[in-house]
Amino acid sequence: EKEAKLIKELDKQKEEEASEREQLEQSRAYTVSVALPGSVLENAQSPELRTYLAGQIARACVVFCVDEIVVFDEQGEDVKSVEGEFKGVGKRGHACIQLARILQYLECPQYLRKCFFPKHPDLQYAGLLNPLDSPHHMRMDDESEYREGVVVDRTTKPGRGSLVNCGMRKEVRIDKQLKSGLRVTVQLNKTQKNESKVYKGTVVAPHVPRTEGGLYWGYSVRLASCLSAVFTESPYENGYDVTIGTSEKGSNIDQTTLSPFKHLLVVFGGLQGLEASVDTDQNLDVTDPSVLFDLYLNTCPSQGSRTIRTEEAILVSMAGLRQKITAAFSDVSNGLLKS
Amino acid sequence: EKEAKLIKELDKQKEEEASEREQLEQSRAYTVSVALPGSVLENAQSPELRTYLAGQIARACVVFCVDEIVVFDEQGEDVKSVEGEFKGVGKRGHACIQLARILQYLECPQYLRKCFFPKHPDLQYAGLLNPLDSPHHMRMDDESEYREGVVVDRTTKPGRGSLVNCGMRKEVRIDKQLKSGLRVTVQLNKTQKNESKVYKGTVVAPHVPRTEGGLYWGYSVRLASCLSAVFTESPYENGYDVTIGTSEKGSNIDQTTLSPFKHLLVVFGGLQGLEASVDTDQNLDVTDPSVLFDLYLNTCPSQGSRTIRTEEAILVSMAGLRQKITAAFSDVSNGLLKS
Ligand SMILES: C[S@@+](CC[C@H](N)C(=O)[O-])C[C@H]1O[C@@H](n2cnc3c(N)ncnc32)[C@H](O)[C@@H]1O
Ligand SMILES: C[S@@+](CC[C@H](N)C(=O)[O-])C[C@H]1O[C@@H](n2cnc3c(N)ncnc32)[C@H](O)[C@@H]1O
Repeated sequence: EKEAKLIKELDKQKEEEASEREQLEQSRAYTVSVALPGSVLENAQSPELRTYLAGQIARACVVFCVDEIVVFDEQGEDVKSVEGEFKGVGKRGHACIQLARILQYLECPQYLRKCFFPKHPDLQYAGLLNPLDSPHHMRMDDESEYREGVVVDRTTKPGRGSLVNCGMRKEVRIDKQLKSGLRVTVQLNKTQKNESKVYKGTVVAPHVPRTEGGLYWGYSVRLASCLSAVFTESPYENGYDVTIGTSEKGSNIDQTTLSPFKHLLVVFGGLQGLEASVDTDQNLDVTDPSVLFDLYLNTCPSQGSRTIRTEEAILVSMAGLRQKITAAFSDVSNGLLKS
Repeated sequence: EKEAKLIKELDKQKEEEASEREQLEQSRAYTVSVALPGSVLENAQSPELRTYLAGQIARACVVFCVDEIVVFDEQGEDVKSVEGEFKGVGKRGHACIQLARILQYLECPQYLRKCFFPKHPDLQYAGLLNPLDSPHHMRMDDESEYREGVVVDRTTKPGRGSLVNCGMRKEVRIDKQLKSGLRVTVQLNKTQKNESKVYKGTVVAPHVPRTEGGLYWGYSVRLASCLSAVFTESPYENGYDVTIGTSEKGSNIDQTTLSPFKHLLVVFGGLQGLEASVDTDQNLDVTDPSVLFDLYLNTCPSQGSRTIRTEEAILVSMAGLRQKITAAFSDVSNGLLKS
């Protein structure tokens, strides 16, 4: 009998270990950011293709689970915000804003777009965009622990919490009273009452689906007024701890390994490469972009075309880095499990 | 004195070895082929975007030095040739022909296009295509041992050889008498007489710039009436010796290594994946595409989008395979040099 108890206990211990391991594998503590100049849009030959190009960039980032896209200005304009009206912004600076706007539009789940994206000339050809098909873009009856939603404009009794439209058949009553129109990430309660008129849930930080659920949850978009602001205005407390510049003049990616990181930044240049971005940045005294980065990588040695376009380079480079990132973190988790 | 002679001899030997090694590194004996269904064009939302998509495919293949692109029909049409008039070909089958035509158009050096590509509705939006910028697309004054050209329509004395337009300031007199209008690959003589009215050169097989010069020299285009014909109608005497199918349901590319090969084939599916291509092929009894290939690979484990589009998958997959191909052949050349 004592033995049976011991076995039971051991089994329980094993189970706990397994679930811990699963949690470890599922959750993702690190982030990946991609930065590129808005000027890439100027390469497109028509407004339709300009829109399509922005969509290619969004999709490339989603395929590789990028958490933040930074659009920087390499033409010396000072553009700070993507909100409000943009009267007076010249044609040149506008590429950054348009790219940022299309990226945000695509990232937003379809059922929230009418709330957050009123008609705008930048979005005139949005119908041509290929959908991102990311995990947080759910259809009405999809089941998911997390959902993006908007706080609806309906007064509820004080203390009862706000109602949120999460694109489901019923609205979700959350634990907090929030201003209507706010976009929120909602964690739905594990058990719901079938007969209830609403679902129940709590508001969580947008990183929770990633850090606790291990889900890819779309990207945030940030505008930077120049290349150096990409680094200095990082939303992460201690900035990016590994930075990678990309260039055909970089060192061979095949001879590179990555160490585990908290916040990775991968930077791409435009038509004239990162040299041009460095040139127009008044905060930077250097001419050789490579000194700005921990690694400066050629991600496509022996390329068959004289130039790789930025939208292609994102897919090619992130495909090369994906494997190195996986390797970096699988070593760590092995280490943790052994100790 | 005897010693000096010995040293000299050793030096000579070393030099020879080095040049041999260089030759070995420069020349490329293997080929890479990519196959995909023409139906991918049907996904595009406008004739302009249809053209642009074809261009994306061409560029993706060129970036990774693909030697052959096979466009196969997965809709049960029987399309055999890309030449001549195509009256009567229905809208469906037409995607294959249009894709093949745009691929051929882009591959052709600009200075030869007016010869080989008369106006055609399939090429109506060719102005939107991004150039391939491959090594065999030379500008007038570029120096190169090899050039693509067209035999000009001018009678020359028998035995003196034909004249070829290679897009240079002078025409090239070749060693052979060939029919005018033929597209040829020309190797220019190492020394040319400045005062001569023509350059001198010899006609070589199209593979020579690759097999002897180690240059990427564009791709050939082949139409296949169904998936199985991609394999059975290979232009290489003994077919493809390594074949790879791609699918999110394949095995993890990170756990794969490649052995050296002569002729590699990488096959992509369309909107419905390779399952659909297998389904419509009357020569194939299987339902699981994986049995057709040596390797069936997921080239983007943990993808952040539910589906990767074919044009994206080419860049992503070839980026993953590039490194494995390099590794396969660097092992071999090491082996050869040691023995
Ligand atoms: C059109 S390319 C820039 C080419 C520019 N002429 C140069 O010399 O850098 C645009 C961007 O794509 C990326 N890129 C292109 N080829 C690359 C390669 N082989 N490795 C890494 N990144 C590359 C870089 O971020 C580059 O700034
Ligand atoms: C739109 S996808 C096809 C998706 C289809 N629903 C399926 O289940 O296969 C088009 C093609 O891209 C390629 N592809 C997409 N994702 C891939 C992945 N993760 N690994 C390898 N190839 C992939 C495959 O060749 C696929 O047939």
